[in-house]
Amino acid sequence: MMNAWKDYQQQHKDRFLEELLALLRIPSISAKSEHNADMLTCAEAVKQSLLAAGADMVTIYPTAGHPIVYGEKMVDPSKPTVLVYGHYDVQPADPLELWNSGPFEPVIIDGKIFARGSCDDKGQFYMHVKALETLVKTGTLNNNIKFIIEGEEEIGSPNLATFVKEKKDLLKADVVLISDTSMLSMDTPSIDVGVRGLSYIEVEVTGPNRDLHSGVYGGAVANPITMLAKMIAACHDENNHITIPGFYDDVVEATPAERAKMAQAPFDEAAYKADLGVTELWGEAGYKTNERTGIRPTLEVNGIWGGYTGEGAKTVLPSKAFAKISTRLVPNQSSAKITEKLLAYFTQIAPAGVTVKASEHHGGEPYMTPIDSLEYKAAEKAITATFGKEPIPVRGGGSIPICALFEEVLGIKIVFMGFGLDSDNLHSPNEKFDVFNFYKGIETIPYFHQFYTDMKG
Amino acid sequence: MMNAWKDYQQQHKDRFLEELLALLRIPSISAKSEHNADMLTCAEAVKQSLLAAGADMVTIYPTAGHPIVYGEKMVDPSKPTVLVYGHYDVQPADPLELWNSGPFEPVIIDGKIFARGSCDDKGQFYMHVKALETLVKTGTLNNNIKFIIEGEEEIGSPNLATFVKEKKDLLKADVVLISDTSMLSMDTPSIDVGVRGLSYIEVEVTGPNRDLHSGVYGGAVANPITMLAKMIAACHDENNHITIPGFYDDVVEATPAERAKMAQAPFDEAAYKADLGVTELWGEAGYKTNERTGIRPTLEVNGIWGGYTGEGAKTVLPSKAFAKISTRLVPNQSSAKITEKLLAYFTQIAPAGVTVKASEHHGGEPYMTPIDSLEYKAAEKAITATFGKEPIPVRGGGSIPICALFEEVLGIKIVFMGFGLDSDNLHSPNEKFDVFNFYKGIETIPYFHQFYTDMKG
Repeated sequence: MMNAWKDYQQQHKDRFLEELLALLRIPSISAKSEHNADMLTCAEAVKQSLLAAGADMVTIYPTAGHPIVYGEKMVDPSKPTVLVYGHYDVQPADPLELWNSGPFEPVIIDGKIFARGSCDDKGQFYMHVKALETLVKTGTLNNNIKFIIEGEEEIGSPNLATFVKEKKDLLKADVVLISDTSMLSMDTPSIDVGVRGLSYIEVEVTGPNRDLHSGVYGGAVANPITMLAKMIAACHDENNHITIPGFYDDVVEATPAERAKMAQAPFDEAAYKADLGVTELWGEAGYKTNERTGIRPTLEVNGIWGGYTGEGAKTVLPSKAFAKISTRLVPNQSSAKITEKLLAYFTQIAPAGVTVKASEHHGGEPYMTPIDSLEYKAAEKAITATFGKEPIPVRGGGSIPICALFEEVLGIKIVFMGFGLDSDNLHSPNEKFDVFNFYKGIETIPYFHQFYTDMKG
Repeated sequence: MMNAWKDYQQQHKDRFLEELLALLRIPSISAKSEHNADMLTCAEAVKQSLLAAGADMVTIYPTAGHPIVYGEKMVDPSKPTVLVYGHYDVQPADPLELWNSGPFEPVIIDGKIFARGSCDDKGQFYMHVKALETLVKTGTLNNNIKFIIEGEEEIGSPNLATFVKEKKDLLKADVVLISDTSMLSMDTPSIDVGVRGLSYIEVEVTGPNRDLHSGVYGGAVANPITMLAKMIAACHDENNHITIPGFYDDVVEATPAERAKMAQAPFDEAAYKADLGVTELWGEAGYKTNERTGIRPTLEVNGIWGGYTGEGAKTVLPSKAFAKISTRLVPNQSSAKITEKLLAYFTQIAPAGVTVKASEHHGGEPYMTPIDSLEYKAAEKAITATFGKEPIPVRGGGSIPICALFEEVLGIKIVFMGFGLDSDNLHSPNEKFDVFNFYKGIETIPYFHQFYTDMKG
């Protein structure tokens, strides 16, 4: 079988890449309403790609927001069914001036595909489309595959929950397979066994009812920027622990065994710092870097603005200041509960002289895959088959809001087979995805279907 | 004489107002290079207005930045000479969405002229142009008047110093008269006896060398926004004293006598708070509101920005964060020394994991007019003549960077005759100037020339 796969993929590799580049040219930014038309175009492109790959039924389901693409290739209802989840929406591309090439004009340099969405997640879900094609065209598909490719992952999947609940029967499957995470490196294959939850809020601080002359009123009226800065500064203590009351209440501490296992993951601090261009790392006292991003919840300010930000100088004491603030959550913190605490915290610590309005952006629950599960072992075996090395289980820092819901509604486990790298500049300028990784994913995924089906037997 | 003045002004009041509105329609924003052409247009308009008012020589002097308009009406070299200083440049108008009418489309509502520059300073320097016209056209001018109207006051007068030094002889005068400040109210006339100095810097905080995914790197790398917030929060202690080392070293404390006199200035805290829409005031412990804005130095954040500030949510850990920060200085703090301390402070307190670049925007020295001086008494007498009340000496919060230089280079005193109000929204949306104040200024200024000449004579 494997030879048939290899031959087919070898024969069509250039086309596979061309098709991905075409998909990357669609600016499907879910956060910005001016791209709503692009979202529809992208959904249609995903539908056509699934049909071309051999899916026997594909439907675009409208939602209150951006549409969801559902597709399936059923071979035999009695056989195991793998539900592939991915998303065709991407993060906003700004700051544009920091891109070396157009975010939606993909270029390949040194074997890397530079484009917004190249890794997160178009490049990765498309590996599954091409894996389906490989299995179908080589007549080796031995299980059922369903696809659910949504268009709102980057804005917290506000409409996917309703869809999954309503289409419970349509989505019936034995396992959810997701490629939206990364590996330690191509030499050190790994599997994410967990994703962090997310809670994201926006804070608006209002001082005086209008912008004031900083000379006439400076020193007599609370400056909303200064007050917002004080509030943000108060979010971490001197050990960089998060100070929001009750923030850590529900955190399940990782076991010494797990921490010991994590400690074995290769980590070159010097290389890590050099890559980021920092002289020192930062983080919660008492934890290693991969623990800070994996097993610990974090709080980051994603954006801040207020007052005069233009050219030159303006002596203004502004009326308002704003910040976008998000936290990453670990098992078994609740996104809803943390969001509540965040909103309460910022409104309650508002210093005298300013008022604070805090609102929720979106959230998502953390999720973990048990490494003794059948689906994890199938993924482990597939990666070992194509990498010649057993993958290391790691806790990823990112979030895939929908995981907890899949398990709750469909009653099945999720397994993450990510082929990206932490250095792929996700959510940043010059996002990239290595062509090698793209092909490696297409090569590996059929093995997962085969091994999983055999094990399920 | 006064009847001649009154009659002339009564006859031409509508034209005076029309002329001012025309001047206000020119968007002469000195901070924004896209308005360079408007600056030239405005300088030319000022020149023509001086010639029309009766100046016998007017020249536009180019500088490295925006041009300076010089004009004079000499009646007799042996007579006293009053040098009128003002500026035709204005602050940027943003945030535009908060204006009720176009910043450069002046409208008169309830006797108030709404436009950027209506009070600061076009409306106020133009009173002097119309006062000159009144004196000339009624044949009552009995002293020499020189005008220096610059185009860079709002950006710190970077080129005026050179000009004043080079044109020392041309500018030879006995007193500098400036209308660029305000009165307590039209019922409580006052004269600013001091203006604060200014020191303005911009801070750039850099963390990682690129924007990062806040899930993948959050918690492991110093966030420049958080670090900037910590630095800003540290600028004031719990008593709102400024913590920059040596900041207060050179401050001349106001005498108990002066503070007692200031305490007599009417201040309605409830009305002040209501006007600003705040429930509580803020400021340095141990000082009253008018002391905080008058006799004490202050530090304000004028602008802040970093990360994602667009629509929706973006889970980014940004590479950079920025802030514009300015301080107001009192006698005898040095703008240069304070700027040095500010730059050193922000670069030195930079937390591990980030680097800080701090640069200077512009500055200006504080200035005080002795209330026992001849020029002060002339102004006091003029205001008493037209308001029927003796003005209260007050310390203004704003800055006019060039004052200290005038005294140093020309060896003469400055007197401030401001006819604005603190509620005129200087540097803010909906800046206004009362028509009544505009006319009152035109009415009062000729008295100053007369009384000053008599006293000097």
